[in-house]
Amino acid sequence: MKRFQEHFDEEFIRIASKALGMPESKITGMIKRRVLQRISRFLPEYYRFEKGISGVEPGTTLFNLVSDIEIVKGFPKIHRAMVLEPTIQAHFKGLPLVAIEEKMNGYNVRVVKIQDQVLALTRGGLVCPYTTEKATERIGLEFFRDHPDLVLCGEMVGPDNPYVPKDIYPEVESIAFYVFDIREKDTGRPITLEKKNELCERYGIKTVRHFGNYPVDAVARIVADLIRELGAAGHEGVVIKDPEMNLPALKYTCSESTNSDLQYAFQFYNDYGRDFFFSRVVREGFQSVEWDEDGDALHERSCRLGESILKPMVETIRKRKRGERITENVRIRVSNIKTAQQFEEHLRILGIDAQFGEPLYVDGEYLVEIKKLNQSTNDRTDALLNGQFW
Amino acid sequence: MKRFQEHFDEEFIRIASKALGMPESKITGMIKRRVLQRISRFLPEYYRFEKGISGVEPGTTLFNLVSDIEIVKGFPKIHRAMVLEPTIQAHFKGLPLVAIEEKMNGYNVRVVKIQDQVLALTRGGLVCPYTTEKATERIGLEFFRDHPDLVLCGEMVGPDNPYVPKDIYPEVESIAFYVFDIREKDTGRPITLEKKNELCERYGIKTVRHFGNYPVDAVARIVADLIRELGAAGHEGVVIKDPEMNLPALKYTCSESTNSDLQYAFQFYNDYGRDFFFSRVVREGFQSVEWDEDGDALHERSCRLGESILKPMVETIRKRKRGERITENVRIRVSNIKTAQQFEEHLRILGIDAQFGEPLYVDGEYLVEIKKLNQSTNDRTDALLNGQFW
Repeated sequence: MKRFQEHFDEEFIRIASKALGMPESKITGMIKRRVLQRISRFLPEYYRFEKGISGVEPGTTLFNLVSDIEIVKGFPKIHRAMVLEPTIQAHFKGLPLVAIEEKMNGYNVRVVKIQDQVLALTRGGLVCPYTTEKATERIGLEFFRDHPDLVLCGEMVGPDNPYVPKDIYPEVESIAFYVFDIREKDTGRPITLEKKNELCERYGIKTVRHFGNYPVDAVARIVADLIRELGAAGHEGVVIKDPEMNLPALKYTCSESTNSDLQYAFQFYNDYGRDFFFSRVVREGFQSVEWDEDGDALHERSCRLGESILKPMVETIRKRKRGERITENVRIRVSNIKTAQQFEEHLRILGIDAQFGEPLYVDGEYLVEIKKLNQSTNDRTDALLNGQFW
Repeated sequence: MKRFQEHFDEEFIRIASKALGMPESKITGMIKRRVLQRISRFLPEYYRFEKGISGVEPGTTLFNLVSDIEIVKGFPKIHRAMVLEPTIQAHFKGLPLVAIEEKMNGYNVRVVKIQDQVLALTRGGLVCPYTTEKATERIGLEFFRDHPDLVLCGEMVGPDNPYVPKDIYPEVESIAFYVFDIREKDTGRPITLEKKNELCERYGIKTVRHFGNYPVDAVARIVADLIRELGAAGHEGVVIKDPEMNLPALKYTCSESTNSDLQYAFQFYNDYGRDFFFSRVVREGFQSVEWDEDGDALHERSCRLGESILKPMVETIRKRKRGERITENVRIRVSNIKTAQQFEEHLRILGIDAQFGEPLYVDGEYLVEIKKLNQSTNDRTDALLNGQFW
């Protein structure tokens, strides 16, 4: 068994070395250090880069096919503008036009075809069985039969989002996929926005809203107005792009969305990283300065921020004091009950402690409630309430 | 020269090994790793433990005397209660009475006599030349002639505090020292509160306010009332102690003081650690729950918190946008101008970039304004305002 295993890996390492242009010893080293992780419970088995390494994006996946591999490059980090005007000017200088698209609030997914399956990859480069079922149903193989080398990069949004559920798009009843980029599978290179929109229209695939292309000098002002409208509607923000996709994109988000992130995260205050809180607080400071807020507006922003932090935390401490468990409650809606079982296994791989409720059969689908346990917040709150020190 | 140096260190290492009950190799290792740091610019030269190590408190200082050393133990960390009632019950269970003292807001200092000098040590175990001048003037040698083995542990408070200036005690015009503990120099063991107060009274040394001794069951309620009064007066909080000093003390602070810390620190948002912000925010949550705050009180607390975070940060970003430098402005008042020069050197050892203004001679003393440069906040704010990404 061990010998077979070794032989098998050697074959993969040899091909991966060629495909990535890296020495075999480097690939072996990455597998040993678990930077490159083998997921063998899936067919075809695959390896994913949990972290980025010398030119390989984090979340890159290598599917181990018979005497071949298929590479799906990870989705690149989108940089954030803290101040619109100077950042847009510095970043897009010299372009005739800049595109503004909506940044939707869900989770980042890349949909690809590997062999004859449609697969959905999470940001981290894992095949998500639940998202794969949704992508297979909603997108299917038609697009990929004509374009096997392309990846549909988009946002999965809706109340049946099992990662961070948000019910902010009335048009999405369960979960829906909106494409924002189309990229080449093995290089990660994007196609132009025009081609993306044309292809998506042709195959009946939804895309994120495109607010138009504008001269660089006008963009900051237009985004500032748009952001207030999107914020009032509870939406997340915008992504500002070179229509030719030669330059990386920029993101900018609404204060309401920042506050809603904080409200959510402070329910689980000891499970989220401190940088999560800090970076959002600093965003609020820079937006207030760019929008030249006077006393009243700054007071209102401050109260909103303070309440987004304190109220959910106080609620959590009170719940725990009453003996209730602090859980993140999400749900999935699956056609095949097997998908729910596979998703349970997937959460285990991610190290998430979750309890799956009894499936409820509704209109031809199974609705499954999931309670994710935030152990750290539960334990810390308990300890402090019982007289332990900070 | 090198040989002399080596010989010299060997002698110290031999004596320190005996005094601390550690093998010589361990002492050598700590010096090499800079856990134990030699400060040779001072006479007598000394070594200080920057971090704690196996039973030795951080901030412990070893004075290297001729064929002898004197150890001054670091001041122990005082644990914080996040929730009063259960923490006091768990911690002081079985004691007949518990003492409540005021926690003053300044900087922690240990005053000792080494050879014939009165010296003031900072929390980190460094001799602070400025504080030493103040301690020499305000306390003198009288107490130490009778009690050479004792350390006066207390708070230096007042507007002429060059670390974190606070003008909250109207009775302190410049800077004053209030003793909270008296401890044995080499063991760090405290004497009882009664003996402490008696000794301080005898030698005319100020002590922090003692609010009385109370049965354990009554303390949480009394502290809760006291904390609101102290908070309204802008004071910091209380320290709750076993009058016999056999158990470690506990601290608890006012919401107003937490907010004032945040207001100060968010002016220099990129120079302070993220834990500094996070721990203070969590304190506010637990206090609100313990005080059973309703909607209005929680709203008020939230607005106060939000403003303590956003307003100083917005002010800093605006200042930087106008091209002003972000500095922490402090001042010292010295009798001897040499003390100011030595303090400049001391700040350099601490890695603080500071500009000293021209000394102003006022009423027999020199007033020196100091601008400490918060490089990280200046640079980060600049970069973001100029279009760099977060």
